[in-house]
Amino acid sequence: MKALHEKILNEGRVIGDHILKVDHFLNHQLDVALLNDMGKAFYDLFKEEKVTKILTAEVSGIAIAAFTGTYFKVPVVFAKKTESLNLDNETYEGSVYSYTKQKHYKIRVSKNYLTSDDHVLLIDDFLANGEALKGLEEIVVAAGATLVGAGVVIEKCFQEGGKKLRENGMNVKALASIESMKNGKIEFRGEEYA
Amino acid sequence: MKALHEKILNEGRVIGDHILKVDHFLNHQLDVALLNDMGKAFYDLFKEEKVTKILTAEVSGIAIAAFTGTYFKVPVVFAKKTESLNLDNETYEGSVYSYTKQKHYKIRVSKNYLTSDDHVLLIDDFLANGEALKGLEEIVVAAGATLVGAGVVIEKCFQEGGKKLRENGMNVKALASIESMKNGKIEFRGEEYA
Repeated sequence: MKALHEKILNEGRVIGDHILKVDHFLNHQLDVALLNDMGKAFYDLFKEEKVTKILTAEVSGIAIAAFTGTYFKVPVVFAKKTESLNLDNETYEGSVYSYTKQKHYKIRVSKNYLTSDDHVLLIDDFLANGEALKGLEEIVVAAGATLVGAGVVIEKCFQEGGKKLRENGMNVKALASIESMKNGKIEFRGEEYA
Repeated sequence: MKALHEKILNEGRVIGDHILKVDHFLNHQLDVALLNDMGKAFYDLFKEEKVTKILTAEVSGIAIAAFTGTYFKVPVVFAKKTESLNLDNETYEGSVYSYTKQKHYKIRVSKNYLTSDDHVLLIDDFLANGEALKGLEEIVVAAGATLVGAGVVIEKCFQEGGKKLRENGMNVKALASIESMKNGKIEFRGEEYA
């Protein structure tokens, strides 16, 4: 996605060889016109699939998933990270390891919002180690629903997540695939949706 | 907002006299077409104001704020609840008391995304005790920005938040104002944007 590539090159900040900060438009401040275009791009990538529900995890995936939902005209569900008093007791759970915080946490979806009839598209902002998508897949499996695939905004291809998920059969597509960020220089993978 | 009133009556669940669960379309599963219409409704309510930025707090406000941002064509910023390793060190802070969790927590916005030139519209899902809006207002004040007003999806008028905020000069508007939920029966306030 060309506009996203340009945004990453112009406004992303590389820290070390692994961290890309895109708080300016994706994770803290939101460029909503660009996010809306991302939603359209995910629709174009998965529109041949039957999709009845979009699933993401709080927090950063929510806005992107919401825009994507408007193109598919299906409900969006976000998995919750904390055990809230207001959440239904009956939930499907997934486990996610956070490398940043170096601990496991649970993500949960109420059983009211995912059924075995659902065909689910996962949406998230980043794909690095693949932990969030793996946790979301666990929820889809627990619900007996069908996993259609996963759309991520930015894949860091130099980390193992995407490779592992695809080897396990997940249909993962990224709007921007970063091959390398060595020495602060961002290089995209060739076959991108530019 | 008529469609919202109907949705609340048809799908909201009242627990006791104070808790309204709208997880079905607003807080866990998202009816994105309705949320998009809410964004348009907030635009109609505040379009005469100069708005340069929309501010909300994670988590439940994000999707609504994102849609609202597309109508105003301005960036959306969401205040973060946790001290993340990836957040900039330089932040504006607000304090919020959670009645559910019975403790104070901080919400924070990076100084990169709010300046004294900004005219800020607050967006949130619920207004009950007014704590979240008060915390967001503290952030706007700390940035030296101008607070334009606040748009909330559902105001529980039988709690004190809206009254107190308006007495302090905040221009608060709700898409659905609930006068009472006694005995499980939802009554809307008369002058609604129906």
